[in-house]
Amino acid sequence: MILHGYYRSTASWRLRIVLALKGIAVEQRAHHLRRGEQRLPAFLALNPQGLLPVLELDDGTVLTQSLAIAEYLDDIQPEPPLLPAEPVARAHARAIAQLIACDIHPIQNLRVLDRLKALGHDEAAVRRWAADTIREGLDACEVLLGRYAGPWCLGDRPTIADATLVPQLANARRFGAEGDWPRIAAIAALAATHPAFLAADAGAQPDAE
Amino acid sequence: MILHGYYRSTASWRLRIVLALKGIAVEQRAHHLRRGEQRLPAFLALNPQGLLPVLELDDGTVLTQSLAIAEYLDDIQPEPPLLPAEPVARAHARAIAQLIACDIHPIQNLRVLDRLKALGHDEAAVRRWAADTIREGLDACEVLLGRYAGPWCLGDRPTIADATLVPQLANARRFGAEGDWPRIAAIAALAATHPAFLAADAGAQPDAE
Repeated sequence: MILHGYYRSTASWRLRIVLALKGIAVEQRAHHLRRGEQRLPAFLALNPQGLLPVLELDDGTVLTQSLAIAEYLDDIQPEPPLLPAEPVARAHARAIAQLIACDIHPIQNLRVLDRLKALGHDEAAVRRWAADTIREGLDACEVLLGRYAGPWCLGDRPTIADATLVPQLANARRFGAEGDWPRIAAIAALAATHPAFLAADAGAQPDAE
Repeated sequence: MILHGYYRSTASWRLRIVLALKGIAVEQRAHHLRRGEQRLPAFLALNPQGLLPVLELDDGTVLTQSLAIAEYLDDIQPEPPLLPAEPVARAHARAIAQLIACDIHPIQNLRVLDRLKALGHDEAAVRRWAADTIREGLDACEVLLGRYAGPWCLGDRPTIADATLVPQLANARRFGAEGDWPRIAAIAALAATHPAFLAADAGAQPDAE
């Protein structure tokens, strides 16, 4: 399998965590987002959305959307599980992942920030847009996480929620989004000691700059 | 169970389709988005994101994020299934749903459009932003759907992909987003004859205006 990604793409990073948690080896192929390589015809032929990540299976089948790919990996290799066993806890884990993947990440992503610049907003305004989006999202995330037992988002092992939350925190730092998030900070501290999260870190990738 | 929603909220509409497909009866409680009822303290106590839908279980447990709730309903009542059985087809169904739920809907949603207005953009510019977002997303969706056998998004029965696609088409019409989408049009035509999709339609809800 080939994971088409980029070291700093937080959606690609989620999948690096999932792959590391499950011990699945893939070939990694980097596409430089800042240079627009995701809009080259060869990449658009893979994913017409022009977005990373893409998982290319050995038979050439192309999978898009990071959370769908994460669940695919969980379907084909159930151990260790990426979701809790109990339906309500599964729903909470998916909801935390989707809070980030739907309501934070796409709104502070390159594509939207570039559109804001095209509308005439300067760098400071664009950074404020991103920071506000991240802060509001993580404020709500912190409240929701306060309802669930830790130490991870949902209990005593990392799930799809943690794999989505931890990369988003790098974007929070990058855009200067800050808040009072003790539960999130404790999860970040735990991830900072976990081999799968360390292996998946942006700075540990071959294409890191 | 109580479904907190709004007739025109496409994320609530997805769940109305899923509930109708599965024949699960719930109490519906409407929160008027245009009047800002989703930002009232009583609603924020349910969902700190201030977003619809919310599914409130009989024991008071609160579930957020429409796709996570859809999968919860599939977990507790597997028939009829909301996803194909085969892992690759499951990934494709989830990816279509997420293309819409992550990369179209939140970027053309009230919260972002209000923020654009606060930045000084007029109604026409805001509508153009929404229409461009929807058109680009559905262009990519059409290409992806062309890879999968119909007549629904993934085969011969509706899945989470169709439940997410059909409501988004109402927003496409509302914002004047148009494109060459024959595969999508055929799915819309099929949905227009399907009892679950008819029952879930915005215009069929008690709070419709």
